[in-house]
Amino acid sequence: MTTQDARTPENTSDDARPREIGWHKGYLSGSRPDIRVPVRRVHLTNGRDVTLYDTSGPYTDPNIDTDVRRGLAPLRENWIIARGDTEEYAGREVRPEDDGIKHTSPRGGLRNLDAVFPGRPRLPRRGRGGTTAVTQLAYAKRGEITPEMEFVAVREGCTPEHVRDEIAAGRAVLPANVNHPESEPMIIGKNFLVKVNANIGNSAVTSSIEEEVEKMTWATRWGADTVMDLSTGRNIHTTREWVLRNSPVPIGTVPLYQALEKVDGKAEELTWEIYKDTVIEQCEQGVDYMTVHAGVLLRYVPLTARRKTGIVSRGGSIMAAWCLAHHKESFLYTHFEELCEILRAYDVTFSLGDGLRPGSIADANDEAQFAELRTLGELNRLAKSHDVQTMIEGPGHVPMHKIKENVDLQQEICDEAPFYTLGPLTTDIAPAYDHITSGIGAAMIAWWGTAMLCYVTPKEHLGLPDRDDVKTGVITYKIAAHAADLAKGHPGAQEWDDALSDARFEFRWEDQFNLALDPDTARAYHDETLPAEPAKTAHFCSMCGPKFCSMKISKSIMEDYGDSMELTSDEEREAVAGMAEKSKEFAEAGNRVYLPIAD
Amino acid sequence: MTTQDARTPENTSDDARPREIGWHKGYLSGSRPDIRVPVRRVHLTNGRDVTLYDTSGPYTDPNIDTDVRRGLAPLRENWIIARGDTEEYAGREVRPEDDGIKHTSPRGGLRNLDAVFPGRPRLPRRGRGGTTAVTQLAYAKRGEITPEMEFVAVREGCTPEHVRDEIAAGRAVLPANVNHPESEPMIIGKNFLVKVNANIGNSAVTSSIEEEVEKMTWATRWGADTVMDLSTGRNIHTTREWVLRNSPVPIGTVPLYQALEKVDGKAEELTWEIYKDTVIEQCEQGVDYMTVHAGVLLRYVPLTARRKTGIVSRGGSIMAAWCLAHHKESFLYTHFEELCEILRAYDVTFSLGDGLRPGSIADANDEAQFAELRTLGELNRLAKSHDVQTMIEGPGHVPMHKIKENVDLQQEICDEAPFYTLGPLTTDIAPAYDHITSGIGAAMIAWWGTAMLCYVTPKEHLGLPDRDDVKTGVITYKIAAHAADLAKGHPGAQEWDDALSDARFEFRWEDQFNLALDPDTARAYHDETLPAEPAKTAHFCSMCGPKFCSMKISKSIMEDYGDSMELTSDEEREAVAGMAEKSKEFAEAGNRVYLPIAD
Repeated sequence: MTTQDARTPENTSDDARPREIGWHKGYLSGSRPDIRVPVRRVHLTNGRDVTLYDTSGPYTDPNIDTDVRRGLAPLRENWIIARGDTEEYAGREVRPEDDGIKHTSPRGGLRNLDAVFPGRPRLPRRGRGGTTAVTQLAYAKRGEITPEMEFVAVREGCTPEHVRDEIAAGRAVLPANVNHPESEPMIIGKNFLVKVNANIGNSAVTSSIEEEVEKMTWATRWGADTVMDLSTGRNIHTTREWVLRNSPVPIGTVPLYQALEKVDGKAEELTWEIYKDTVIEQCEQGVDYMTVHAGVLLRYVPLTARRKTGIVSRGGSIMAAWCLAHHKESFLYTHFEELCEILRAYDVTFSLGDGLRPGSIADANDEAQFAELRTLGELNRLAKSHDVQTMIEGPGHVPMHKIKENVDLQQEICDEAPFYTLGPLTTDIAPAYDHITSGIGAAMIAWWGTAMLCYVTPKEHLGLPDRDDVKTGVITYKIAAHAADLAKGHPGAQEWDDALSDARFEFRWEDQFNLALDPDTARAYHDETLPAEPAKTAHFCSMCGPKFCSMKISKSIMEDYGDSMELTSDEEREAVAGMAEKSKEFAEAGNRVYLPIAD
Repeated sequence: MTTQDARTPENTSDDARPREIGWHKGYLSGSRPDIRVPVRRVHLTNGRDVTLYDTSGPYTDPNIDTDVRRGLAPLRENWIIARGDTEEYAGREVRPEDDGIKHTSPRGGLRNLDAVFPGRPRLPRRGRGGTTAVTQLAYAKRGEITPEMEFVAVREGCTPEHVRDEIAAGRAVLPANVNHPESEPMIIGKNFLVKVNANIGNSAVTSSIEEEVEKMTWATRWGADTVMDLSTGRNIHTTREWVLRNSPVPIGTVPLYQALEKVDGKAEELTWEIYKDTVIEQCEQGVDYMTVHAGVLLRYVPLTARRKTGIVSRGGSIMAAWCLAHHKESFLYTHFEELCEILRAYDVTFSLGDGLRPGSIADANDEAQFAELRTLGELNRLAKSHDVQTMIEGPGHVPMHKIKENVDLQQEICDEAPFYTLGPLTTDIAPAYDHITSGIGAAMIAWWGTAMLCYVTPKEHLGLPDRDDVKTGVITYKIAAHAADLAKGHPGAQEWDDALSDARFEFRWEDQFNLALDPDTARAYHDETLPAEPAKTAHFCSMCGPKFCSMKISKSIMEDYGDSMELTSDEEREAVAGMAEKSKEFAEAGNRVYLPIAD
């Protein structure tokens, strides 16, 4: 997010197309030729450039020919191989039930990986011997700066050492499964830009593989930093494979959903073996982070009995039912260290799920929620001791005055591990507008320290988001994230606002559109009222019309006073003293408070 | 906002139609038959009622036949007459230039009031002798509880004494021009529900009288508590007359806009006489509150010269230009006490405008802004000393971490006078989504003490809002206001959320829709994914489908534990001890974690 003069070649190594007004894909270079960090380069009409963070992947680079059947190029593959600590291996056999196809399926036959994804047959990779920690955390702890860390440093505008330090301290994660080499490295931590996750996923009720891949590229086009595939219906395995092979951002999942499909939805029939097999299946596909509801302990379940809305996390309710059925702690909790051993061999990041998060204003910050958080704090330490990167999930539905307590407690209990929150929704009364009820809470919780925000779409509580809902959710959450970046004083965050405000004040309409989070809609709204092309350069807008334009009056004032004024109080007094003369000049110039209208 | 059993007749005096599922107009009664406070009565499928605040006026009462050409019934007329402190008088003659019709207009002729509004010829009314204070503040200071105050008390669910005390202390205003008897009394103050204003108004560029009246009724339909008519083009006078005669909510204006039209947009030609004449014109029409930018002092203008976006308030920039042209303090400031004498004879409330509010993140909380605020503090005291009700306008564009300072300073400097803020927008980067950038700031500033929020629509900075934009703006701001009511712990605010969350947990879909801020959109979104009628009673939704429903799992847990559980830690331990037995019961019942699906 650095504003730079177009004439300065610094960091503008190899943009995708020659300079013209508008915005285009560009790349910042690192210390080696294979570190090319994508940016959105906005070329302004005043000859300046504004460089913005870009999550859209190769799809917005006209020089790259993408094809969803082939997948994206494995950007990180050489880096992973070069480290020499991983091995290819045969991997787990893909079975029909991975896609929710029952044993009684008429076709019956085994699917193979080639059938799942025709693009690029590839053996899975893992840490040598199946247990070597190949995580960014392990490298950071050893003091190594990986190409991924350097990529992130260029992307965030900080030093690689800062990236390494934050990862080593557990304050940030860089989700990067060795089997998802297509992903562009990004970092999640409170001392970096606030990130946004978009959930996609089919369900038993609706939607297809194609739709999910389309939603993923669409979400990243508008700024999603990660995508979670929460599919629960048919074709879970295949959908995920297509999403992963085409995703430039880290992909998260909740393996429990698929595991439950494998036992026909009977929670009590879930076993560690089935779950473990599912986790390995997903590790081999390349899932970058996994939500694990290991903090739902047996003794916490009764704490939810008097709640207004009980347990609203799907994973939480499944594990609660399992604990009750078996009257013991869940296999997620009892096998947690074994799970750590698996994840660290692929560099899958834990997202420790808040299975007991509140599902209504009435249930916020209750004992069930905070009891689970304390357990997540213990698990966080355990995971780190196994070199597994870890973030912590948070609520949910929380009224404004109870939000800060959530972050403060999480940061304290979980040693400042990245907090990853869903909203929170600040009121329950607005179904169809929960992107807004939660956007309010999201901005606040991010300001106070949340590292990544899980978006909420207008369809929350009502249905599955379509393409438009995904866009609305992502844009709303980019607003929340950026508002938080500003409030946190992130270096460079305000330059974006300043560039847009400058364009607004100078009536550079095209620049305003191109700098907007959503240029298309901004332009469309303007054209609705003043469709003519000259209006794009007009020195007024449709709100006030030419006569009432405060911007024009202000510009006239600035032209009179801007150069001679200092804003300290001594000089202020002088200025006021000098105003009589100015007033005369103003009158002599015809008392014009409005500038002439262009064309 | 009280939840009550339908069988309790308390306060359900005369609902508009018999009980059936859905929501309908109802009325709460006061101590006398002519105090009938409108409410929105939601009838739930479980036999309970939820009573919500209602701003929609007689338009939603099927027993009342409304006609925009006739206007609304003068609800408060008898109360005003009964006080015996007002008089009818001939009033100012309506002139062509009041509607922006130039002296060179081809038709030329004078318009009379009848031509302006055919509905109900009526002489204007004012305090006896033209100077008697007939303000709710004057009555409150004298210890009188007016019918307007009692109406408000019923509406807010508090005592009339509380209403009187807050008005007398200047912490609340009850805008109620004696010439707008059609309005339903409402109150603006931090110790009441947070209110929302919607701006409408034509401009030189677009829109008609009919459209503005339609936008006003549409805005109040969705919850606008007041409406500001900010028209700047032709037919200002006539548009305002039609809006007032048909408005059930207080109407605000910025008289300066019309005054400037009368001098052909030449700010330096404005005079106190022209302005005063315009104010009286609007007082006689019934405008309930007026934005007056009297705090823009000559010496503050240079403080804006180095700003990124100068002066963005139209009124502020006009007055700044005037001050510069004449090199003296504005007539608004020098004639302020005379203005007080006028307003108090009609009970018009001051909305002291923040002409120097920031128009970009970069300019927030600067010296220009706070210098003006200090002047508004002085003017606030002056206005109160003349018994004129007063509120104070606030920004604008403010990053989250600078919002609280605005409220705290305003409350301190202005003796807790109601704060009335525009947003604030928490970032500048999202034109077309400024209802959201500002909804975030609005919720926060209201939590911290702002009494009324001026909405922002998606068209802000881009064009004039249409019907859909008005609705989106109002709903967004109702969310912000209600989130603040919750965070402030307003008695009763949470009952609404609880009622909706209960409906959600119990899969009462129709109740969820009817309790929603926007039932139509909530229902439409649900139907988009699961259109069939049986889905309205299904015990699952389209997000997870029947197998993964956490709500169903939770209900099963509650049925097992809900009655026997206490959430104190002692009993918690006992409960955990008792869980082995429960687990056995659970297994014996077939380990069913899902309830049977209805139909």
